[in-house]
Amino acid sequence: MSLCAVGVIHSPLKCREQCPRQGIEGGVEAEVEVSPEFAAGLEGLEVGREVMLLTWLHLADRERLRVHPRGDKTVPLKGVFATRSPSRPNPIGLHRVRIVELNGTTLKVHPLEALDGTPVIDIKSIIRKE
Amino acid sequence: MSLCAVGVIHSPLKCREQCPRQGIEGGVEAEVEVSPEFAAGLEGLEVGREVMLLTWLHLADRERLRVHPRGDKTVPLKGVFATRSPSRPNPIGLHRVRIVELNGTTLKVHPLEALDGTPVIDIKSIIRKE
Repeated sequence: MSLCAVGVIHSPLKCREQCPRQGIEGGVEAEVEVSPEFAAGLEGLEVGREVMLLTWLHLADRERLRVHPRGDKTVPLKGVFATRSPSRPNPIGLHRVRIVELNGTTLKVHPLEALDGTPVIDIKSIIRKE
Repeated sequence: MSLCAVGVIHSPLKCREQCPRQGIEGGVEAEVEVSPEFAAGLEGLEVGREVMLLTWLHLADRERLRVHPRGDKTVPLKGVFATRSPSRPNPIGLHRVRIVELNGTTLKVHPLEALDGTPVIDIKSIIRKE
């Protein structure tokens, strides 16, 4: 099971220490630059719409199965599948964002907590109940 | 970017024709069998809780960038990133399900539209606004 990058994030968040834990906790406006060969996949996306953005959290620790939630060492360890920690066997980031601008194959989205340079692996429409 | 299966779906849905398009459109009760080496990752999950289940839609067409939404040929083609079609460059399935039973490393979940034998690649807690 092998993933391909369909794009990349351009963000003012340049190091992990700058990144909020979740988009809704201070995520910024960032750009999703989709590679031209996937341009046709964007047809039908519109400014104002929310989408699910899936990224590959390339700096994550894939060996870790337990974490202190939110990095707080006073909180007991928890299984990664019961958290949103980037540490997990398959470090896929899931971000609910709004499209605020659309220029060719570049989408400006908000609010995003992902680091500059993070690979984008998918964009999905939102369905009822999510 | 290479994925590992952390588990597999056991479902009464044995062929694609039996699968509803979305979990909320007639998804069934199904089992997520997590491999024993990832057991620690499940600590903290509880019956009654909703989670985001990520699967690898192994039968999907990865070359397709435009689809007729919901397979309806009377509807104009749309980019896959503006849909939830399984056809897409990285065929990751995203399923919001409730844990209805938990036995060791096997979770019974509902409602799930994924096919029997689908690889599971991640489980995530749900955060506010999803």
